Amino acid sequence: MTNIYPPKRILMGPGPSDVHPRVLQAMAMPTIGHLDPVFQRMMDQSKDYLRALFKTENSLTFPISAPGSAGMEACFVNLLEAGDTAIVVRHGVFGDRMRENVIRCGANVIVVDAVWGTAPDMALVEDALKANPHASVLAFVHAETSTGVEADAGALCGLAQKYNCLSIVDMVTSLGGIPVDVDGWGADAVYSGSQKCLSCPPGLSPVSFSEKALNRIRSRKTPVQSWFLDLSLVMNYWDGEGGRSYHHTAPVNAMYGLNEALAMHMEEGTDNVHARHRLMHTALVAGLEAMGLSMLVDASCRLPQLNVVTVPEGVDEGAVRAHLLAHYGLEIGAGLGPLAGKVWRIGLMGEAARASNITVCLSALGEALNLQQHSADTGAALSAAQAVLAG
Amino acid sequence: MTNIYPPKRILMGPGPSDVHPRVLQAMAMPTIGHLDPVFQRMMDQSKDYLRALFKTENSLTFPISAPGSAGMEACFVNLLEAGDTAIVVRHGVFGDRMRENVIRCGANVIVVDAVWGTAPDMALVEDALKANPHASVLAFVHAETSTGVEADAGALCGLAQKYNCLSIVDMVTSLGGIPVDVDGWGADAVYSGSQKCLSCPPGLSPVSFSEKALNRIRSRKTPVQSWFLDLSLVMNYWDGEGGRSYHHTAPVNAMYGLNEALAMHMEEGTDNVHARHRLMHTALVAGLEAMGLSMLVDASCRLPQLNVVTVPEGVDEGAVRAHLLAHYGLEIGAGLGPLAGKVWRIGLMGEAARASNITVCLSALGEALNLQQHSADTGAALSAAQAVLAG
Repeated sequence: MTNIYPPKRILMGPGPSDVHPRVLQAMAMPTIGHLDPVFQRMMDQSKDYLRALFKTENSLTFPISAPGSAGMEACFVNLLEAGDTAIVVRHGVFGDRMRENVIRCGANVIVVDAVWGTAPDMALVEDALKANPHASVLAFVHAETSTGVEADAGALCGLAQKYNCLSIVDMVTSLGGIPVDVDGWGADAVYSGSQKCLSCPPGLSPVSFSEKALNRIRSRKTPVQSWFLDLSLVMNYWDGEGGRSYHHTAPVNAMYGLNEALAMHMEEGTDNVHARHRLMHTALVAGLEAMGLSMLVDASCRLPQLNVVTVPEGVDEGAVRAHLLAHYGLEIGAGLGPLAGKVWRIGLMGEAARASNITVCLSALGEALNLQQHSADTGAALSAAQAVLAG
Repeated sequence: MTNIYPPKRILMGPGPSDVHPRVLQAMAMPTIGHLDPVFQRMMDQSKDYLRALFKTENSLTFPISAPGSAGMEACFVNLLEAGDTAIVVRHGVFGDRMRENVIRCGANVIVVDAVWGTAPDMALVEDALKANPHASVLAFVHAETSTGVEADAGALCGLAQKYNCLSIVDMVTSLGGIPVDVDGWGADAVYSGSQKCLSCPPGLSPVSFSEKALNRIRSRKTPVQSWFLDLSLVMNYWDGEGGRSYHHTAPVNAMYGLNEALAMHMEEGTDNVHARHRLMHTALVAGLEAMGLSMLVDASCRLPQLNVVTVPEGVDEGAVRAHLLAHYGLEIGAGLGPLAGKVWRIGLMGEAARASNITVCLSALGEALNLQQHSADTGAALSAAQAVLAG
């Protein structure tokens, strides 16, 4: 059997995003023990970096040893018990996954829907909170990867506090791409993913829990249904008083990668990183619109790091993606759920948010559209993007 | 903040074990998408390799995207429902963790204990099966990492079948180090870890499920309590008919490492790998005994890949480990649970099972013991080990 090795891609899908060679090389550093004193110092460093990124003083801030879906589950299974009620704001696939998580906790779920591609309506959320005074959790997705919409996280966390709920916030696609402010917003349990705007390989889920969230966990009447994700056990490894004790074996080399990516983020500076995402997004949208394409999401709530583009009538969207992958090694994302076949999702996450990628993407997309007899003016698209990039 | 980087260690603890540079370099290959056609071909290759290692034809054989603890949890939460009864054979820490998992499923647990450092008693297990005819699962650890004992997995799986139970078998430390035979034994749900005898970085948990296990899952009355580990969803990604669908984002680079480690295992050949573990173990034990140390576990059920050595009276075991780490970069393991402070655990797993490591370990251990005024004849130890290695 001949071994299979990966080609070089340009990752402009919904994640994973492009990974910098420094981070890849960090993954290849020699493995050491998960209880090694040097690894424990690295754990402390990563926690400090993550606190800076999340903008929080929360002691319990660390990466869960599994992808973002496990980070989501960690929040729900620790904060909910059977019979509790949670309100879930659903404006895409990941809000629906939150709903699934509530059900699997044996808790009651109240769903507040928003049309996919639009932002959650604060009045509807407040109505649900008023109508369900026993609800103990309000959960929502800050940056919906399936639709490209940003929810107003500060306002939603404020509503949670007003109605005495803990907030669970999905920051998988937001962290590192747009401002987050865990302490300023008063978010109680948040999770992210390594493979989006942090530009790491997938596999880790940074999380942070407020003191209010920890008090909820301490006052549980029943054990957490997951042993692997039980924070009362996991925190002895990540946040142990007087030394760490073994819980599970952490993914050591993945942690090397995350620590390096976080260090690179700090070197560039959070504000600069956010500004870069914003600039690249503006350039990409200018190019796409000059090409005659249109964005699904209104500019008022559009995510810079995930650009959802409507597939023009008559275009075979799968053939376009296949052309990009085959001829340019360029990955862009397909639509999910009700948006399947109707949109492309173009990521500008972390290392992928670079001028060179925008040039390749616009040029390749124009070529693929023209191959399908859908006239697209690539020259105009590149000019429009370059005008933005030139400031 | 100065970034922290790992030193080069020799990993002879209970895992992670030494990782070959080929595997480390594979971790650093460029990240591609988890739905990329090339990655899907690599997934198929890894599944084929794992089937060969597990000795199974089970279609659902793949690595869970999280460490071995999550693999354990995947087995329990999928095969058990609230109110079910499981019999757990407990001969160390990991058997106790199985018991915890059963409880968190809301199921009843019957524990059959063996003294730590001894093998499970088949008669006691059969008594428990007879006394609990409604039990639906028999669970046990094949290679107890906390004690260095091998359980008779074939006999235990046979008992499970005789009493109409599904078997859940922990192969975390056995896979790749000693023979396993999933189909021959009729094991129904098995899990392992990447960081033991497979010599990968930690973070992945290879699992395999029999048709009987899948039928149990298909006939569940309640949803699996974990969304992340729900096999009815996960299998659409790893084992999808007519194409894979997105479930979670797999840890792509960790998978590169695993695929490379599995390929290296195939190149060496399973029988040769097992023989190497056995030879290195024999040499290490000869050396340890020539030095005046004694093994905790009787030779009849001793694991070659995990050697549990009794700490001599009056020796500060923590100081010995600290000396080895500081002066030789050599990690060996401490005792867990009731064995804490009483034993060392010396791993000879995968790449760590090399003659050079045995030489360093015996020599460094002799030096550390002599520093504590505990006379140890390092020369005799090395001679005894070398006599074994010379065949």
